[in-house]
Formats: sequence, C-alpha cells, structure tokens
Amino acid sequence: MKKMYNVAVVGATGAVGTKMIEMLEETSLPINQVKLLASKRSAGKEVTFKGQTLIIQELVPESFDGVDIALFSAGGSISKQFAPEAVKRGAVVVDNTSHYRMDPEVPLVVPEVNPEALRRHKGIIANPNCSTIQMMVALEPIRKVYGLDRLIVSTYQAVSGAGINAMEELKSQALAYINGTPAEELEADILPCGGDKKHFPIAFNALPQIDVFSDADYTYEEWKMINETKKIMEDDSIKVVATCVRIPVLSGHSESIYIEVKEDGSDVSKIKQLIADAPGAVLQDDPSQQLYPQALTSIDRKETFVGRIRQDVDIDKGYHMWVVSDNLLKGAAWNSVQIAEKLHEMDLVTLKHS
Amino acid sequence: MKKMYNVAVVGATGAVGTKMIEMLEETSLPINQVKLLASKRSAGKEVTFKGQTLIIQELVPESFDGVDIALFSAGGSISKQFAPEAVKRGAVVVDNTSHYRMDPEVPLVVPEVNPEALRRHKGIIANPNCSTIQMMVALEPIRKVYGLDRLIVSTYQAVSGAGINAMEELKSQALAYINGTPAEELEADILPCGGDKKHFPIAFNALPQIDVFSDADYTYEEWKMINETKKIMEDDSIKVVATCVRIPVLSGHSESIYIEVKEDGSDVSKIKQLIADAPGAVLQDDPSQQLYPQALTSIDRKETFVGRIRQDVDIDKGYHMWVVSDNLLKGAAWNSVQIAEKLHEMDLVTLKHS
Repeated sequence: MKKMYNVAVVGATGAVGTKMIEMLEETSLPINQVKLLASKRSAGKEVTFKGQTLIIQELVPESFDGVDIALFSAGGSISKQFAPEAVKRGAVVVDNTSHYRMDPEVPLVVPEVNPEALRRHKGIIANPNCSTIQMMVALEPIRKVYGLDRLIVSTYQAVSGAGINAMEELKSQALAYINGTPAEELEADILPCGGDKKHFPIAFNALPQIDVFSDADYTYEEWKMINETKKIMEDDSIKVVATCVRIPVLSGHSESIYIEVKEDGSDVSKIKQLIADAPGAVLQDDPSQQLYPQALTSIDRKETFVGRIRQDVDIDKGYHMWVVSDNLLKGAAWNSVQIAEKLHEMDLVTLKHS
Repeated sequence: MKKMYNVAVVGATGAVGTKMIEMLEETSLPINQVKLLASKRSAGKEVTFKGQTLIIQELVPESFDGVDIALFSAGGSISKQFAPEAVKRGAVVVDNTSHYRMDPEVPLVVPEVNPEALRRHKGIIANPNCSTIQMMVALEPIRKVYGLDRLIVSTYQAVSGAGINAMEELKSQALAYINGTPAEELEADILPCGGDKKHFPIAFNALPQIDVFSDADYTYEEWKMINETKKIMEDDSIKVVATCVRIPVLSGHSESIYIEVKEDGSDVSKIKQLIADAPGAVLQDDPSQQLYPQALTSIDRKETFVGRIRQDVDIDKGYHMWVVSDNLLKGAAWNSVQIAEKLHEMDLVTLKHS
C-alpha cells in the first residue's frame, strides 16, 4: 500500500508558512491530509489548498495527534516548545528556525548536499538558514571535486527573511521617502532586527546587521553561515567567514562569494560545468548577453542561480561568483518540503495512522 | 598678494556637477570667479552660487580663456575633447571621468592618500572612481602601518553614480512595483549601464554589473577598482579584486572589504584606532549601540565612514570591514574640490590672469 502522509504546517500565516502551503500543493510527496496551525490570533482564517478550503487551527500540543510530518516556521521559541510535543506524538519535525540547527543530535540538511544525514534523525530535522542553503547548493559540487580551503561571503539579503511586516515596512518607507519624507523621519519598527533595541530605515539603505550581535562582533546571522556550512559539509577545517547585509529587496537573497579550492586542476570552465550539472543549481553566466542571476528574476523559482564566475586576478585556486535564490522557497519553504520528500523516498517516516 | 582662482565646472547640470557647485560654495579655496559650463541644451539655465545668479554657458574651447582650475564631470568623451583645450589655455584640469586615470602622465589623487603625486601634474589630474576613493581613505592608514598583502571588496553601489536619470528610474520603478506593476513590465532604460545593450529594473533588485564587461569577465568598474588602487597606493604587488553590484539605494556607496595585512602586530583595536585617527575617515563601530555606517546617513557628508571591523575567524592578519561614503561627494565632487584646495596649498597652479 502506498504511504500517504498527514502533514502539519506550524506558522501557516507567516511569510514562509504561506510558501510552505504553496510548495505542498506542488510536491510529489503523497499527502493524505494537511493541517494548518498558527497562533490563536490567526485561528479560524481560511486558506485554499488544492481547491479545498482549510481552516487554520490554534496550535496546541494535541494538534500533532495523527500528524506524520510537521513543518515548523513560527519562530525559535515555538519550535522549542512544540517540536518535542510533535515528536512525542510520533511526528517527524522539519524545523525552519535556528533553534535546533547546531544540536549535534539534529541533522541539518540541504537535500542536494547531505541527504544521508537524514538517516540519523531522532524526530527533528533542521532546515538551514536561508543564506546558507543557497551557498551550499552552489559550492557543494565544487567541493566534491576540488575541495574547499576557504570561503568569504558578503550577502545582499531581502527583507522577506524578516517576515511579512518587514516587507510592508520597506514598501511604506519607500513610498514615504519618494513622497518627500526626510530619511530621519521614516518610521522603522522592525529592521534591522526585531529583537534588537534600535530600528533603522531599510528603504534606499543598506544595513550591515542581520540578527543580533554576538561573539567577536559578528552577528548571529554571520555565525549561522559559518557554523552551518561546516556542519552541512561535515568539515570543520573549511575556513568560512561572512558579512551579512540587508538591502531594500523584497525577496531573493544575493551573495558575492569568494572561494579557494584545495586541489589542482580547476579552471573557470570546469567550475561552470560543475554548476551546470549540479542538482538544484542553474548556471546563468554569459557576460556577452548580460546574463547573470538577479533577485527579481529568482522570485517564485525553486532553483539556486549562479553566475559572474571568475578566476581571482592573483590566486590560481581562487574564484568569485554571484549566487541568488528565492529565500522564501529554496531558502526556507521549498527546502523544508524537499526534506519531507527525501524522508519519504528514503522511507524514514513511520506512519502513526493506518 | 593672495592668489584668487577662476574656476570652471564642466557638466554643471549633472548629478556630480551640481554637487561640485555646492562644494565650491563651502571650499576654503580662494575663488575669484566661477564659470558653469554644460551642453548647448543646458546653456542659459540659471544657478545660484553664494547668493549670486550664474548663467550656464555652452562649453566651447574658448570657455577656458582666463580659467585657472577646471573641474570636469561631463563624461569621458567630453574630457577627451576639452581637457586638452583647457590645458592649452593654461588651466589645470581636475577630471572626474575615467578617461585619463590610468595615463602614466596623469596623477590619480585622493588628497588624504597621495597628495605628493600632484607635483608631477602636467595640466591634468584625475579623480579616481567613487568606489575606489572611499576604499583608499579607509585602507591607507592601515597600509601605512602594517602593509597590505591583499584585499577583496564586494560593493553595494547607489544609482546616483549613474546620474540623475538613474535616480529617477529607481524611484519610478519602485512606485510602479508597489502599485502592482509586475517585475517583467517595469520600464528600464538606463541601468545596469547606459552603454550596454540590455537594461534591467533596479527597484527591489541587485544588479551585479556596473559599466560594461571586460577582460576575464570582470566589468570595467571592477578593473577600475583593481588598477586604480595599485596606482594610488603606488604598489603593484597588492592583490586586489572586486565584485561591483548596484543596489536600490539613491546615494551612498557601501563596501564589504576583506584585507590581509603584511606585518605582524595588528589587532582589531589597533586597526580601529588607525581609522579613528585617519584624515577624512570616521569610525562608526559600536555593536552594543548598533552603530555602523549606513548609506542613508552618509548622504551630504564629506567623510568616509568605517565600521563592522572584525578579525577574520581563521586568518590572523585578516580583517573585515564595512565602508560607506556619499559617492557624489567624497566619491566625486568633494574629492575634486579637495584636489583643487591641495593644488592651492602646494602652490601648483600658475595664475593666467593678474
């Protein structure tokens, strides 16, 4: 008998949760039933799923009775509280928050990169940070062949990573500024980071802070990229460093990445071929046609786009590239649903219902 | 008798020319007379200068009769044609276009960095590229003490570098997109680069192309940063590489810069102190107060702002930083007027009138 899954989405009304529902409409995962969970405030709202009307329910521990796979994207504290409740009730959790990512018991998975890590799951699988995922899709095919000695990334991140309200904030600030409101009078309540003290306008600005500051004056977002890369690539010796910057883009994260490979024998055309052949990656690299990845054209696409691949001017084993992906899809919702698909393919979910 | 200069501004109606006039109102340079030159189309327009009304005149070779210092910012072809005419008539030219920058006979000057190069001038002095200038202000104090082995820069450049029309294009695209025009229907006629075939929207986007493509798939803008850095620092051994990206910011260029110094003995606090003491630079670096440079707060300021200074996670002599400046001021108009001030201080302009 074909396995059919009961799937729950936790945080169904958020920027990522909304996209999770879309991705579940398109997935090859055989679905029996979808349950949409959110805070009490959103309970009762209606959402269309494959032509059916689903009603959003308030998240409580019992919500997970009968659920086989639960996709979480409602913030770290919700995952901390409710993921164990879901696991207790037999569900496998795919968590899109940072809460469990660095837990040694929890696999951190990009399906194109380290699907085998799923076999070690004990009920919870973590979805990496959006900026990390697209970088992994672009770099893993290169690492596999030539090794990676170091990488330096500067990000150009969209505001949708901070939620729907951040998107509205960018739009209303942009309108106000164009209509003559001076920069110092623009209202800012969310960015750079909901959890920090001060807020700055993002419209027509660039903010070199994503998440709060941490050790050595790096932000948590920067540490996420550093630590998650080593965990996903299962290699602590890779030198990784990040500068994470928010720019006034609604969706689509861009990254300027410098890498140095370990082995001899690489060149630009071989690197390009590796990207062209890589699962989940699309090579967009033709300067004669001005073809390169762009945030605006990445929206609603599941792939990671790679271009501007150049050899370093001085370092033989150094390469530069420009990597773009829809942070709400491959960076979040799609990667989570892909993990669910892999769990099914690898038969790693035990059904709790008949 | 105190020297008083007749100063001409070529390209007086452009984004940079307008700022040159503002900077001439604030300069310590003793000015006898200001002459505003532009194309025939703009001739006759009135501009206020220190309370006086000046009338813009059509640029012709004879415009430079009686001019001591001519500030050019009307495009490379105008500089090519008219700078020699100005020099022939005894003026010293400060050229803001890229036309003469790599000419070995022409000094390329950031006054805080290499003022002595002005002594070699033969009538023309080149103003460096906007992105290069602010990087030089930030890095020269570090290079002087610890040497520079390499630098990798990713830029976040404002549209005003492409002129007033590019600023209007960003604003009208932003309004259209917010009002529901789909991305693929946004009108784009200027960016990424007026001289290239295709144009793409910049609103809510990031375009990894500034200027046209050149050798090894680097853009001219990227080569400018590489070559100009070596010329200004008078050291061809510095490894320099750039990725230049346009973002939806009106004014204020930001840069994520990685450097490796040559000598032992540096640390983050010493690097910060060097920046704090550097001429033209302002240290804005206090994560506990969320203090870091921002494009929006750099507008109309003459300084270069430096923050987010961190040691590399793995490389002892590696540092990361975030450098922001108003590209129309320090990146163009102010640096040009500063060069004129230096020429006066160093007595390098011979007056042609009594």
